[in-house]
Amino acid sequence: MFAKRVSIEQVEEGNDLAPKFDADGLIACVTTAAKTGEVLMLGYMNAEALQKTIETGEAHYYSRSRKVLWHKGATSGLVQKVVEMRIDDDQDAVWLRVAIPGDASCHVGYRSCFYRSVPTGAPADQIELTFEEKEKMFDPKAVYGDAPNPTIL
Amino acid sequence: MFAKRVSIEQVEEGNDLAPKFDADGLIACVTTAAKTGEVLMLGYMNAEALQKTIETGEAHYYSRSRKVLWHKGATSGLVQKVVEMRIDDDQDAVWLRVAIPGDASCHVGYRSCFYRSVPTGAPADQIELTFEEKEKMFDPKAVYGDAPNPTIL
Repeated sequence: MFAKRVSIEQVEEGNDLAPKFDADGLIACVTTAAKTGEVLMLGYMNAEALQKTIETGEAHYYSRSRKVLWHKGATSGLVQKVVEMRIDDDQDAVWLRVAIPGDASCHVGYRSCFYRSVPTGAPADQIELTFEEKEKMFDPKAVYGDAPNPTIL
Repeated sequence: MFAKRVSIEQVEEGNDLAPKFDADGLIACVTTAAKTGEVLMLGYMNAEALQKTIETGEAHYYSRSRKVLWHKGATSGLVQKVVEMRIDDDQDAVWLRVAIPGDASCHVGYRSCFYRSVPTGAPADQIELTFEEKEKMFDPKAVYGDAPNPTIL
């Protein structure tokens, strides 16, 4: 379905979509809020998720914890409409700029998955994370019920 | 050096830095321009790169193609100063907001590695990428000389 990768010039300087999937058949995807530029999440797509995202204009990922195609928002209603889709130089990463209802994205209930900052300039074994979002946008229990938490230890 | 992952609550709702490295010992890192919010690159860090980024406040990655610790900008001079560092809910991804001299980041010569867009709403096998940056910020030959291109087919 996608172009075959034949040369560095084609991949870096051409107009062919010739994505490079990793050993697990995945490509990384960073998703930002089109309105604010905030990074919402970092997910992964397999070939099917990439195809569906392109064809429907709604973000699809591959869930590594559940091992299924994941139409983001199918459970929570927080569907991500693609405003712009980009691909990087060597075509092993995708950037989606999306619009989302309610401005919330993270399964923990925060706007962004990146709701904590890591202080720099100190020894790495003395780090305390700082919460940058003070309250949740929604109650995950009310939205997801008893669905298993996707976080793996 | 980093906290042990003991519970979902600790990882998602706590103040411990307890990163999850993948089977290759890596964690994904999305890097944006602090000034514009533009996504510059998606890279990977091993534990040493994460530690050095925290302690020095300059972005360090692990180069998967060269298999070495990579102090971004050591060759090109385009060092990334960390303005803010964030970590995501399950702590398997880092977001760096950085300041860079000359506003250029990509080894191909563009500002962002994501210099091409992918049109959506069309069949995936009929995609033509569109260049969103019209000209390069620097000449990669002049900056990198004959260093091997990091793109792998």
